[in-house]
Amino acid sequence: MGLSEEIGAQPVIAARLLRELPADLAPLAAAARERGIRYVVIAARGSSDHAAIYAQYALGALARLPVALATPSLFSRYATPPRLEGALVIGISQSGQSPDVVAVIEEARHQGALTAAMTNDPSSPLAIATEHPLDLRAGAEESVAATKTYTAELMVIAMLAVALGDDSGSDHEALAMVPDAQSAALELSDRVAALADAHAGLVDCAVLGRGFNLATSFEWALKLKELAYVRAQAYSSADFQHGPVASLAPGGDILAIVARGPLAADIAELVARLRSERRARVLVLGEDPLPGADHLPFPDTLPEWLSPLVDIIPAQLFTAALARAKGLDVERPRGLKKVTLTS
Amino acid sequence: MGLSEEIGAQPVIAARLLRELPADLAPLAAAARERGIRYVVIAARGSSDHAAIYAQYALGALARLPVALATPSLFSRYATPPRLEGALVIGISQSGQSPDVVAVIEEARHQGALTAAMTNDPSSPLAIATEHPLDLRAGAEESVAATKTYTAELMVIAMLAVALGDDSGSDHEALAMVPDAQSAALELSDRVAALADAHAGLVDCAVLGRGFNLATSFEWALKLKELAYVRAQAYSSADFQHGPVASLAPGGDILAIVARGPLAADIAELVARLRSERRARVLVLGEDPLPGADHLPFPDTLPEWLSPLVDIIPAQLFTAALARAKGLDVERPRGLKKVTLTS
Repeated sequence: MGLSEEIGAQPVIAARLLRELPADLAPLAAAARERGIRYVVIAARGSSDHAAIYAQYALGALARLPVALATPSLFSRYATPPRLEGALVIGISQSGQSPDVVAVIEEARHQGALTAAMTNDPSSPLAIATEHPLDLRAGAEESVAATKTYTAELMVIAMLAVALGDDSGSDHEALAMVPDAQSAALELSDRVAALADAHAGLVDCAVLGRGFNLATSFEWALKLKELAYVRAQAYSSADFQHGPVASLAPGGDILAIVARGPLAADIAELVARLRSERRARVLVLGEDPLPGADHLPFPDTLPEWLSPLVDIIPAQLFTAALARAKGLDVERPRGLKKVTLTS
Repeated sequence: MGLSEEIGAQPVIAARLLRELPADLAPLAAAARERGIRYVVIAARGSSDHAAIYAQYALGALARLPVALATPSLFSRYATPPRLEGALVIGISQSGQSPDVVAVIEEARHQGALTAAMTNDPSSPLAIATEHPLDLRAGAEESVAATKTYTAELMVIAMLAVALGDDSGSDHEALAMVPDAQSAALELSDRVAALADAHAGLVDCAVLGRGFNLATSFEWALKLKELAYVRAQAYSSADFQHGPVASLAPGGDILAIVARGPLAADIAELVARLRSERRARVLVLGEDPLPGADHLPFPDTLPEWLSPLVDIIPAQLFTAALARAKGLDVERPRGLKKVTLTS
């Protein structure tokens, strides 16, 4: 299965997780309640680390749990692991192979902390090391650039956040709408190709998002690097103003994610300012266009906390089309293998 | 006082903190023990956020406390703040003004969590909002790019980590060596200027570090953006291999921080591979040169956990010299003000 097919498989995987994952989540949620967990620690690399950024917002907002991203080298290399009493410790890895992520889960279990792991391989070292494995059920991912396993990770996180939170009923209804919204996003592929052709000269850019969609900005930037060799740098739109804005050249490229919610007006205002003061060329990923900016649409039909499961799809399609417009082979990014082992 | 003077003031500030800060730290450490804190949450932006990255390693290794970087928008914009029971919540801000950082501390205090704040202005909103203010004692910082307040923040964090950890005596001895090591680093300024002239064409690069010096890679990249308009992107050297390496153009620039410790050989090996496979041009910040790479020296005389307080100094000097070599005004970076207010 190639990259296009893997991008296309995302709605089917989300529907499968909706049906099958609750059986795995129920014992984890029960254990979390019984042990009175206070916070969450997540170990992950690459796209899975961007899923972890989404978890900071989803688990923070729905389950009111603070989420720390682990410092794996303190576990794997310095032999000074932090004490994890009261934590739920989660490893996220498509392959379940990376030794540094496995080291965090092994130490957490050794300390007696509650552990879970999201992997796409139930027989991997990570799945075996953890107390509560959560299978991504995405089918083998053959393309080097993760797409379907990224949104599968987001779906598992979203369902975990609902399971650990105060279930209002409406959250379950919103989750059930994800596969259809993802299917609608996939239908935009023609429009995306024309936009990619117009950006074939893109070599560097900043990708701005905030809140729930900070994860989308990091994941989109990584796809741009891996597939289209664009030196794309992701920022929280707030952090961008605390220094990095100085490095934006006159006429430089800005990609911005604008989903409905309390931050939308801020990001739109920042983008307008960068256009007028710095003559930035702007591409907006959002339901509606912004004045003077190119527009990559996504169907913004879900509550904001679920928008990252949908808006990354046009970004994936755009990036794959951009790589092809540049004459690059999306199945063979330079310098990468499917499984990267860091210790 | 201009940028050069502020860079030069760093050893005096560290010595002042060694003398004066213990009186502020003692009641905070006593309260932390009494309340049995389990983990730490830090809210910060810009350079202060890089000090927070250092805190993840210093507090993790010395005090064995997991550290979460806060998601300020959950507090300031979404009205769904995580529950902070059992946490020590720290705000870090030179000015003490940014509303999003203040919002995290106010909510933490409202919830009854233990709060501290590092600021350079004891009368700022952040200093007033917190239970335990920790004054940076750095004197007014007038340059837009933070230098002396960054290392002052690192010094406060290092002293806090020792105060919260199992004091071995040797940690106190190592802290006492910081001002002299910083003074030795300042003496390298001539050598640095020649190196900067040779890099006057630098427009983009990746900055690689890991472990304690992940903070240095992020802070150096930010200085390069603010002062020299270099599109510098910081990475953990482990994360870089999980995708971003694809975006390195043949002959592209790599800056790498190699401090003594268990990760030094890994980074040196990665750099050698990038040189041979991708013809990368490499600049190494470390005590010793690496084959075929340019060399920015720093006196690597302290234990690794304190090296970030010293190695950032040649990086600051190099970056200021690079900006001058490019004909830029280091006191007036485009698009920036000294105090940035994000909410």
